[in-house]
Amino acid sequence: MQQFTEELIVSASGRKLYDITPQVKTWVQQSGLQTGLLTLYIKHTSASLLINENYDSDVLVDLEAFFNRLVPDGDPLFIHTIEGPDDMPAHVRTALTQTSLSIPVVDGQAVLGQWQGVFMYEHRHMSARRKVLMHLIGE
Amino acid sequence: MQQFTEELIVSASGRKLYDITPQVKTWVQQSGLQTGLLTLYIKHTSASLLINENYDSDVLVDLEAFFNRLVPDGDPLFIHTIEGPDDMPAHVRTALTQTSLSIPVVDGQAVLGQWQGVFMYEHRHMSARRKVLMHLIGE
Amino acid sequence: MQQFTEELIVSASGRKLYDITPQVKTWVQQSGLQTGLLTLYIKHTSASLLINENYDSDVLVDLEAFFNRLVPDGDPLFIHTIEGPDDMPAHVRTALTQTSLSIPVVDGQAVLGQWQGVFMYEHRHMSARRKVLMHLIGE
Repeated sequence: MQQFTEELIVSASGRKLYDITPQVKTWVQQSGLQTGLLTLYIKHTSASLLINENYDSDVLVDLEAFFNRLVPDGDPLFIHTIEGPDDMPAHVRTALTQTSLSIPVVDGQAVLGQWQGVFMYEHRHMSARRKVLMHLIGE
Repeated sequence: MQQFTEELIVSASGRKLYDITPQVKTWVQQSGLQTGLLTLYIKHTSASLLINENYDSDVLVDLEAFFNRLVPDGDPLFIHTIEGPDDMPAHVRTALTQTSLSIPVVDGQAVLGQWQGVFMYEHRHMSARRKVLMHLIGE
Repeated sequence: MQQFTEELIVSASGRKLYDITPQVKTWVQQSGLQTGLLTLYIKHTSASLLINENYDSDVLVDLEAFFNRLVPDGDPLFIHTIEGPDDMPAHVRTALTQTSLSIPVVDGQAVLGQWQGVFMYEHRHMSARRKVLMHLIGE
């Protein structure tokens, strides 16, 4: 049984879903593991991880439209406003999505479904350099 | 240390929570592992995984009522409508729940709490054959 | 490769986010593992797990304000009311947050980001003794 870890840096230029599927798949393949468990972990509280459709990019537009309506920037409900009108909404969006994802590895590949992509979801409007830790265990 | 993987097929006949607890528990027991980590991964973007109460079935009715109100079918907010009025809501519901679940195994059993069940949550109204990959590592 | 498991008891005195970061970090350090995977699993359906900012406590106040508005106690939508007006909302809040969390371990430490804390999120108003199973695999 072996383990591998690597930090993936995602350069985000504002609020959006960033497709990291190619980087994740390639890293799994390069490890040479045939069977195992891949874990992705994002080290932030205003950006998150999400698995969703990566075929029609309208899905990403609609996902963002939904979260924007559900957790509006500048909501007067919030008292933590010192870091800007999009900061507390970013924490809520992070709470509603994922900080970690687990994906089994079978036959040397992460077992993503046909329409599934792995996304880093940046929730702030500013640019940011986001760190995603990848961990792999198996043989 | 050993690993096991298996694909569980769940035949869904429309939007509903499907209890897969018995299949999951049985598979863990049959592996013979005493201590380990079970991961469940659903290979879809319009169906998801959820752990919630499996004692009073009214809880499942209310969960569905809540998600139906929060993410209504045919919402004019959405532009990805080509696959039907329930398709984009299905992607949002998937984003708000889980694509993967991790459950430790202790004393040869998945450590589910007394009232916890594992559910496959189908978000489309049509029938579908959903694939859940189960992965187990331990000894 | 080694495994460790331990049950962490969190005594909750009502609806609130309880910071369990110190207990989790200490337990990982005491295991002596250098590289591995930590899994946290809560054995309940009206309390959940969450990773979010643990620097400014206003963030926790705002998170609770958001969930309280999104899933109000006593919502007439719900039919499962026998356990009180906060019970079904607790199940919904659990569905919208996490029952399990996975955190890689690198250099002997859980790889939490600078502002990240691990929280047990109690969703009931009453006091409760909540069980969080910690599992560690690695070497």
